[in-house]
Amino acid sequence: MRIGGSEEIAWMQICEPTEKDKGKYTFELFDGKDAHKRTIDLSGQAYDDAYAEFQRLKAAAFAEKNRGKVIGGLPDVVTIMEGKTLNLTCTVFGNPDPEVVWFKNEKLLELNDHYVVTLEQGKYASLIIKGVSSEDSGKYSINVKNKYGGEMVDVTVSVYKHGEELPDIKPAASGKARLIPADPAQEPAMSKPAKSGRK
Amino acid sequence: MRIGGSEEIAWMQICEPTEKDKGKYTFELFDGKDAHKRTIDLSGQAYDDAYAEFQRLKAAAFAEKNRGKVIGGLPDVVTIMEGKTLNLTCTVFGNPDPEVVWFKNEKLLELNDHYVVTLEQGKYASLIIKGVSSEDSGKYSINVKNKYGGEMVDVTVSVYKHGEELPDIKPAASGKARLIPADPAQEPAMSKPAKSGRK
Repeated sequence: MRIGGSEEIAWMQICEPTEKDKGKYTFELFDGKDAHKRTIDLSGQAYDDAYAEFQRLKAAAFAEKNRGKVIGGLPDVVTIMEGKTLNLTCTVFGNPDPEVVWFKNEKLLELNDHYVVTLEQGKYASLIIKGVSSEDSGKYSINVKNKYGGEMVDVTVSVYKHGEELPDIKPAASGKARLIPADPAQEPAMSKPAKSGRK
Repeated sequence: MRIGGSEEIAWMQICEPTEKDKGKYTFELFDGKDAHKRTIDLSGQAYDDAYAEFQRLKAAAFAEKNRGKVIGGLPDVVTIMEGKTLNLTCTVFGNPDPEVVWFKNEKLLELNDHYVVTLEQGKYASLIIKGVSSEDSGKYSINVKNKYGGEMVDVTVSVYKHGEELPDIKPAASGKARLIPADPAQEPAMSKPAKSGRK
């Protein structure tokens, strides 16, 4: 239990409420002459409501802490010359280990010799595009997710031909991750997750 | 030994010359009526010169095959929003395992909590810039090198502020690797190579 206050506010916080915390609580304030009391009855429906709210907040905080996340590594825009190989690598997190799925222009990326995805130690997610061509230009997204939810982060890839002027490309979105809710009904179809370990 | 020819040329190739290949070689051509002969004496100085040239070409081919190389992975230009973390990863090769050194604007990159470099399995080289700021904009180069030589590959990094227009950035060079000769006297000063394994 923690208590505190300032000139304008007095507060008490019950951090991990249990049945034992039920009962009447009284604040007593002195103005130098008289005592002023305020009593709160934390029992019955009031306790049940407060406890349910506590449970909800606790679960939300737990889910936010443990959901799939892209910790970092991906730029917003990547420009690369035709014929080269591109490696997009980022650090991901989730507890339990998240599933990682890559999209191109909002569609699931079909994996083959050209598009290779890896996930190392459940932590380093890579998309490797071998021998890029102008058809590989577009918006790529990584979807990192576990049962607590996740997020989607975009990278715009722009392939230019040798000797060509570099295109002036804007990132697809605001450069911010898009949250993915935990509810499976809200999810886009998922492909099989990236296999662990490099080939 | 291989022989071949066309209407205009006749050739003979001794693939791995030894002492036994010394001696006189004669080409005989028929024009339908007469025979025409050309004789080459592959012995003495002629053999020694040819052998020395063979040794030189063989060593050069071996060095070219085994020198440090960036196989692929790096784009030419990367644009990223301030505050994010950037991971530049590429696949390198060399036999023996190459040393990997990173430069920023032609100067050795000083490694610290902000700039982290890794080299995994002697094969996957990464430069991670944590929490990029506009001061991190510039030309980064990876130098991959062993005793047979190596190469330098550039990436232009452009950091933009949230809400700012994306800058129109051109790659620093032609998008091609710059060769590094094997001769140590030709080399720029090298920093200690990236340690193997992620932290």
